[in-house]
Amino acid sequence: MKTQEIAEFLNGRLTGGGDIEIVRAASLDTAGPDAIGFLEKPENFAGHRAGALIVPENFDAPETVPTIAVGNPKLAFAKLAAVLHPFKWREGRHPSAVIDETAEVRADFVGAFVSVGADSQIGEGTNIFDGVRIGDNVRIGKCTIIHPNVVIYDGVTIGSDCIIHAGAVIGADGFGFVRDGAAGYVRFPQIGTVTIGDGVEIGAGTCIDRGALGETRIGSGTKIDNLVQIAHNVQIGARVVIAAQTGISGSTVLEDDCVIGGQVGFGDHATVKSGAIIGSQAGVLPGKIVRPGVWWGTPVQPLDEYKRQNAHLKGLGRLRDEIRELKRQLKEKSD
Amino acid sequence: MKTQEIAEFLNGRLTGGGDIEIVRAASLDTAGPDAIGFLEKPENFAGHRAGALIVPENFDAPETVPTIAVGNPKLAFAKLAAVLHPFKWREGRHPSAVIDETAEVRADFVGAFVSVGADSQIGEGTNIFDGVRIGDNVRIGKCTIIHPNVVIYDGVTIGSDCIIHAGAVIGADGFGFVRDGAAGYVRFPQIGTVTIGDGVEIGAGTCIDRGALGETRIGSGTKIDNLVQIAHNVQIGARVVIAAQTGISGSTVLEDDCVIGGQVGFGDHATVKSGAIIGSQAGVLPGKIVRPGVWWGTPVQPLDEYKRQNAHLKGLGRLRDEIRELKRQLKEKSD
Amino acid sequence: MKTQEIAEFLNGRLTGGGDIEIVRAASLDTAGPDAIGFLEKPENFAGHRAGALIVPENFDAPETVPTIAVGNPKLAFAKLAAVLHPFKWREGRHPSAVIDETAEVRADFVGAFVSVGADSQIGEGTNIFDGVRIGDNVRIGKCTIIHPNVVIYDGVTIGSDCIIHAGAVIGADGFGFVRDGAAGYVRFPQIGTVTIGDGVEIGAGTCIDRGALGETRIGSGTKIDNLVQIAHNVQIGARVVIAAQTGISGSTVLEDDCVIGGQVGFGDHATVKSGAIIGSQAGVLPGKIVRPGVWWGTPVQPLDEYKRQNAHLKGLGRLRDEIRELKRQLKEKSD
Repeated sequence: MKTQEIAEFLNGRLTGGGDIEIVRAASLDTAGPDAIGFLEKPENFAGHRAGALIVPENFDAPETVPTIAVGNPKLAFAKLAAVLHPFKWREGRHPSAVIDETAEVRADFVGAFVSVGADSQIGEGTNIFDGVRIGDNVRIGKCTIIHPNVVIYDGVTIGSDCIIHAGAVIGADGFGFVRDGAAGYVRFPQIGTVTIGDGVEIGAGTCIDRGALGETRIGSGTKIDNLVQIAHNVQIGARVVIAAQTGISGSTVLEDDCVIGGQVGFGDHATVKSGAIIGSQAGVLPGKIVRPGVWWGTPVQPLDEYKRQNAHLKGLGRLRDEIRELKRQLKEKSD
Repeated sequence: MKTQEIAEFLNGRLTGGGDIEIVRAASLDTAGPDAIGFLEKPENFAGHRAGALIVPENFDAPETVPTIAVGNPKLAFAKLAAVLHPFKWREGRHPSAVIDETAEVRADFVGAFVSVGADSQIGEGTNIFDGVRIGDNVRIGKCTIIHPNVVIYDGVTIGSDCIIHAGAVIGADGFGFVRDGAAGYVRFPQIGTVTIGDGVEIGAGTCIDRGALGETRIGSGTKIDNLVQIAHNVQIGARVVIAAQTGISGSTVLEDDCVIGGQVGFGDHATVKSGAIIGSQAGVLPGKIVRPGVWWGTPVQPLDEYKRQNAHLKGLGRLRDEIRELKRQLKEKSD
Repeated sequence: MKTQEIAEFLNGRLTGGGDIEIVRAASLDTAGPDAIGFLEKPENFAGHRAGALIVPENFDAPETVPTIAVGNPKLAFAKLAAVLHPFKWREGRHPSAVIDETAEVRADFVGAFVSVGADSQIGEGTNIFDGVRIGDNVRIGKCTIIHPNVVIYDGVTIGSDCIIHAGAVIGADGFGFVRDGAAGYVRFPQIGTVTIGDGVEIGAGTCIDRGALGETRIGSGTKIDNLVQIAHNVQIGARVVIAAQTGISGSTVLEDDCVIGGQVGFGDHATVKSGAIIGSQAGVLPGKIVRPGVWWGTPVQPLDEYKRQNAHLKGLGRLRDEIRELKRQLKEKSD
């Protein structure tokens, strides 16, 4: 792709040569003459060897390298990289795949040792990699990528343009039991389902349980990292981001456009309002309503309060000393 | 199932029509005329459309719908749902399964791409789903369900009536090393095993390591959620409940009937006495003995103390102000 | 193995009979006459039934059992156990394995239902167990053990003498997105790779993401427990130990010989200097530099400070009482 074409694709302002051939996207420190990099801060310019650069609009480009000025260089770089390094879509159906005769599999690719159960439907373009297990009555949309050894239980619905990484488990039974005295626990029914929208990404090893009686729902455009636990009946809106190892208990609601850090724990029946940001390792108590803003700590609190409390904590030693001194002074006076 | 039959099955008191046909269990907000729901609080009654309801004994039922009064509606509902929505047991052995000739596999169902190693024994009724790996010398009881892509290492013993969810790993090597100076780490032997009782449920992605020299043990009736980590030589009693993403370090003991929240961390060689309840995200130090009661926080402490400490923490700002005021007053007096 | 041979192998001092036949390593409480145990503290001696014991050099051995005195009994025991209980290496290639014709697979063992992609190379001695997925252009060294259902994505490099436990996922896409206003998120390219050294152990269910543009790197001799999350571009040195369920965010560096507890969370771009030890459940903020020493808590601090702060916290109630008393006294004086 020539630098001129790139500038047009990104709707950016080209400075310097327009016929440099760019074949890959790279980081500034590894980019060679055939690669394009991006920078967000002008001070990172020195020393790179890239063939072209995507730069901020206010960047006063030295003329040693072609630059393409855009409003958001990182975003432009990401969009360009998707063109330079497209996913390698596959085609074909491996003869070892075991596909129930009642299933409608239009997927472009079904890998080795894949299982697809009765009455399941899979759309065109979708790629199902080796060792994936798809149960009965599953619906999967178009151009979705399911990486190796993913397990999708009966009755789950997954949209189009999703990416599900290896080892994820969608639709296992929720964790709900009722104590029956000395006899132990009786399972509460886990007969609901999971519904996942379009453009959702689910990380490796992540588990999304089916609803107990209703459904567990993941909205379109939501991105979930690795080893995340999503319990029965959780409702996650659109364009939510959840970092690795976070756990969300039953029936909790994350509204649209929330951002959740890693290793966060949510009690059940909590609600996170649209636009809230919760820092890593935070703990949200059951039933808590988290308003928009930045939140931190366990139990979760507004970041400002968390910082103030943390500062108080750090100052506890001095506080003790002050009290000791006050006692001394008071005693002195009394003597 | 007619309402009259349901009342008899649940040993409950029927009010209203006994010949309503009920085909499914549902939540109050989704139940239609063919479904039965349950309620625990009378105020939830209004607005439902269920064909019948399981209600508390003291509930003064309006006569608009048949009700079945029992001591514990949720428990009764769970027991009934198990009858209305039984697990779909399967039968048959997929020709692709690779079963060692020395293995004794009486399981009713063995799915596609299953492996069973030498000298393993699997009881009647058990269902082994696609892609499950069973090593050598494994023992599995009767009517146990092993969901897709579970891995069971050599020598593990699993009882009857268990449910193991997709992607769980039972019997991997424990994590034990001895430092050998600059050369790095030498593995401590991980040659023990895992023994799991009857009626145990193990969540998706959960890992239970084999004992180093002895055994890791999970007692009967214990329920373990997704993505839980259980290290070598951990001893878990009967009817213990462990929520998602909790981690239990080596040789720690959880006695019978404990309840453990999600994302709890246990140091090694800790002991949790029978009946203790530990809140989510708590941290238990190595060697700690946790007595019966409700515990919270890191390091774990009785819930009352945790709450008191948390209140103190919240009051730190005011405490500072009070000290400042005291200093001012004292200075005033001195002047 | 005779006790005399064991003493020679361990370079230890034998006291008592040299021709006792030892066939296994065992813990003191389960060892019978055919087993060797070890003890680190003389007070643990009483009551054992082992055929021989590895003891500390200063141990004044009773003459009831042959003892072998060494500098580090646990280390000697571990080395001996590796000889008495060697890994059962396998040979052969199961006919169901699907191996791309361009792959060079010298591995001694390839199990059932294994996939190996185009242009991948696997060294001699390596054992690939059932259901493992190996993508295209993967490099795996010699005598590495890959347990069942592990997934290795395209382009990953793994050294020799590694052990990768069941269900681990190496090389999935990192979690990086750029917000594009109301349209939601655009993927940042995840086109880097993962490079793992020699002698690395990776626990069950652990996920190691590929670099975004560069590589995620795990140094030789490093040991990683179960369900650990390692994000894109993380750099882990040699001989690092990471306990279960720890999560490491993007581009964070753990230098050689660090020891990391379980459930620790690292923000992105943090650096842990060589030799640092971080306690379980600690939280390391993004960009933080952790110097050598022992660290604890969230946000992470030196253990001494953590303990002091925790003591202050415990003393908060008394502090309040003291202030109340001071106020009373001051008021008394004023009246």
